[in-house]
Amino acid sequence: MKQVEKLIDRVINRVNINLREFNFDATPYAKKVIPLKQMINFDGFYGITSHHPIHFNFIHSNLAGSYFLGKCITDHALVYKTDVRGDELKKKGDDFTYQGTSFPIDTDEAIRICDSYLIKTLIHSFSHDPESPEEFLIRNSMSGFYANIHGSPIEGCYLAPFSTVDLTTLHSCIIGTFSYVCAGDLYHAQVPDGTIWLKGDTFEFKYTFEKAILDKYINNNLDARPTGILMDFVESRKYDFQAVFDSATNKPDINVPSQSAVNRYAYVAGDTTIGENVLISQRAYLVNAWMGPGTNAQENSYIINSRLEKNDITAHGAKIINAWLGEKVFVGFNCFLQGKPGLPLSIGQGCIIMPHTIIDLEEPLEIQAESVVWGYIQNKADLEQNSIPLSELKKINKDIEHKNIMFKGSGKDLVEGFQQRIDNILEANGAYFTNENKKTGHAQKGHSISYNIIQPYLTGKNKGIFPSISIRP
Amino acid sequence: MKQVEKLIDRVINRVNINLREFNFDATPYAKKVIPLKQMINFDGFYGITSHHPIHFNFIHSNLAGSYFLGKCITDHALVYKTDVRGDELKKKGDDFTYQGTSFPIDTDEAIRICDSYLIKTLIHSFSHDPESPEEFLIRNSMSGFYANIHGSPIEGCYLAPFSTVDLTTLHSCIIGTFSYVCAGDLYHAQVPDGTIWLKGDTFEFKYTFEKAILDKYINNNLDARPTGILMDFVESRKYDFQAVFDSATNKPDINVPSQSAVNRYAYVAGDTTIGENVLISQRAYLVNAWMGPGTNAQENSYIINSRLEKNDITAHGAKIINAWLGEKVFVGFNCFLQGKPGLPLSIGQGCIIMPHTIIDLEEPLEIQAESVVWGYIQNKADLEQNSIPLSELKKINKDIEHKNIMFKGSGKDLVEGFQQRIDNILEANGAYFTNENKKTGHAQKGHSISYNIIQPYLTGKNKGIFPSISIRP
Repeated sequence: MKQVEKLIDRVINRVNINLREFNFDATPYAKKVIPLKQMINFDGFYGITSHHPIHFNFIHSNLAGSYFLGKCITDHALVYKTDVRGDELKKKGDDFTYQGTSFPIDTDEAIRICDSYLIKTLIHSFSHDPESPEEFLIRNSMSGFYANIHGSPIEGCYLAPFSTVDLTTLHSCIIGTFSYVCAGDLYHAQVPDGTIWLKGDTFEFKYTFEKAILDKYINNNLDARPTGILMDFVESRKYDFQAVFDSATNKPDINVPSQSAVNRYAYVAGDTTIGENVLISQRAYLVNAWMGPGTNAQENSYIINSRLEKNDITAHGAKIINAWLGEKVFVGFNCFLQGKPGLPLSIGQGCIIMPHTIIDLEEPLEIQAESVVWGYIQNKADLEQNSIPLSELKKINKDIEHKNIMFKGSGKDLVEGFQQRIDNILEANGAYFTNENKKTGHAQKGHSISYNIIQPYLTGKNKGIFPSISIRP
Repeated sequence: MKQVEKLIDRVINRVNINLREFNFDATPYAKKVIPLKQMINFDGFYGITSHHPIHFNFIHSNLAGSYFLGKCITDHALVYKTDVRGDELKKKGDDFTYQGTSFPIDTDEAIRICDSYLIKTLIHSFSHDPESPEEFLIRNSMSGFYANIHGSPIEGCYLAPFSTVDLTTLHSCIIGTFSYVCAGDLYHAQVPDGTIWLKGDTFEFKYTFEKAILDKYINNNLDARPTGILMDFVESRKYDFQAVFDSATNKPDINVPSQSAVNRYAYVAGDTTIGENVLISQRAYLVNAWMGPGTNAQENSYIINSRLEKNDITAHGAKIINAWLGEKVFVGFNCFLQGKPGLPLSIGQGCIIMPHTIIDLEEPLEIQAESVVWGYIQNKADLEQNSIPLSELKKINKDIEHKNIMFKGSGKDLVEGFQQRIDNILEANGAYFTNENKKTGHAQKGHSISYNIIQPYLTGKNKGIFPSISIRP
């Protein structure tokens, strides 16, 4: 494993030099965290379809347990159990519009991961960066367990466990544990642990978790794996996925309508129902889940003992347990929404559950339709503090410090921006597909993926390193 | 499947133009024989080890169910459920000796399959051709079910089902059903069905099966799969392999000594024992097999209710049922040696069972040690006709027509040539590995193979065609 160790050192050096102003040392987050033998214990995967321009190029990398779709280039990178979903990469000939200016895309966009170490990270390709429209770059960076890199090129960054960067370009930044950032561009910034931060052109929203609560749910440790309720939750279910990945032909034993897609690497068990136009992505986890028409479960999401009525979105890494969702509810990245047996959670139609919201009930809870919800909620009193009707938020047009949140600017723009985005997601996923409206999305196209499975060298000086692999149409 | 159909037509045209002098038409052997949907039903595989220079390059090909090891290039080819084992390809820096002349190998040898259609064929890389030492070429050719291409570059050829070409370079030849050819070079020749033909510099051996017997065991049909006892035998067991290929982590539930290798794609069942230095290759089939030290079961071989004492060789495609083999028995390609319950077959030490021998017993049979055996044998009387002690064969030094065989030249050279080759095979397989003699072979090196699994496009205009894949160290 000499070459693998060298590669880890290479990444550490590159991250550290980029983050020198913060005196950051990546070593304790890179070494000892994943036992080296894991690097040969898991296969990598790539998906091939006729719908996405494919081009894979893997050089001097370890890709253990990772999954690639689209046009993906990795060199000198460790990509451990990471999902790289390039199905929304821009294609040659597309027009790209940014702030009213439109220009053509000259070559198929690629995700390029270079000199980076990503652990159980989710990368999704919906990129907004106008400065580099044809290359989605992740360079000289490290990310921890269950971080999400969503449409966010990053260079010289450290993303702590369960953090999310969403439609944000980052240069030399540290994003804290369980922090969510959607802020356009960030340069040489350090975002503290547990910060939920949305910044648009005309609004800004910020919430910060109390340290004691954050530590209980997720705690980043030096020289060891993270700990806490969120980590326990996902780690205790990882063996269920093992059988899914060990089988060469996993097919869930349920009825899947022809206009819906259940990924071959999803875990589906119990009394689960899949409606029309439903998208279940790889590494989604469904037990006793009733998935109504147009709903989706994105990568690393968990839906357990829950019913999603219609057109609900479960973003990457979100967890929904013992809950009922009305129509068109948006559950953001890495949310943890946990009702309990006898203490159900009910979320009314049109609610927006902000990314990284934790609802962990100690009494039954009903969230009124058309609410925006954030923060940490255990009961009705918490909900009162941590929610606002959409209609009220839309009226706000000033800077406020509302207990635990800071808000600036136009509430209307935030709400309408979110609603627009929700519609875009539903459309991209194919939730609106009908016999009349034939526009297909991921749910309709997701059947026909070929899965190719790759392994590293198991012996010799390159043990743990994958051979150089190039795949083109 | 437009592109797949085009590819089949392309191959047919190229085979036909090469074989025009025989008025040969490949169409009925290429079309309707394999349902097109099979071309997307099976994954391809390639093996990666630190012991073999790897380089795979697959372009505009279908590779359904096939396996590749070593340096393999395919373009415009259909390689259906074919094993391409490149573990004896010559390496850069090797010295190659042919008829006393030695010269260096400048680049790693590659198997190149081009404009060809191979159905369930076994290709093994031990090539002898001095004229093209760095490229093992299979071009403009077709081969049928369970043919063996063993160290034999071929161009413009048709190999009928269950035929073998062994260490022979072929140009524009037709090799008949169940025929075996080991003859150095062949140009524009047609070898009739059921011909077993060995031609060395100083000897020649030829045997021809009676048509009625041949038809009973294997019959090549137009526009359909071959029929007969041999075909039924293998096809009735193919479902046992399905589970092996469907599992991502098949490990036979038996003890495998550290110096032996049981390939992950072998089928092993019943009360089977694996001794030291044993090699079980992919698609070998073992049920109640006692594999003594140094024995091997090569690709597509079947060993059922049988005991192989020591250093026995089961060549590609050979079948051994209800039999006992003494030490160092050689069972040639595609042999069918079938004792029956209560009618056991016993083969004494040092026997050479010629390739394509059929022993299908109607009474118990004991073959004396140190015999050469050929042809079709059901009982003691047949054995008398179809065998000769090694010591007697060594004395022959003239041309004879011995009932059903033709022999010319030096019996000594034939026997010693065979014995030399048997020793080479045992050494290459690692049968002689000990704590003192550390020279490893396939049995010792075979553990550490990574298996990478690839699939074609499942939809679109390239349905059934694999993407272009290039893999290098």
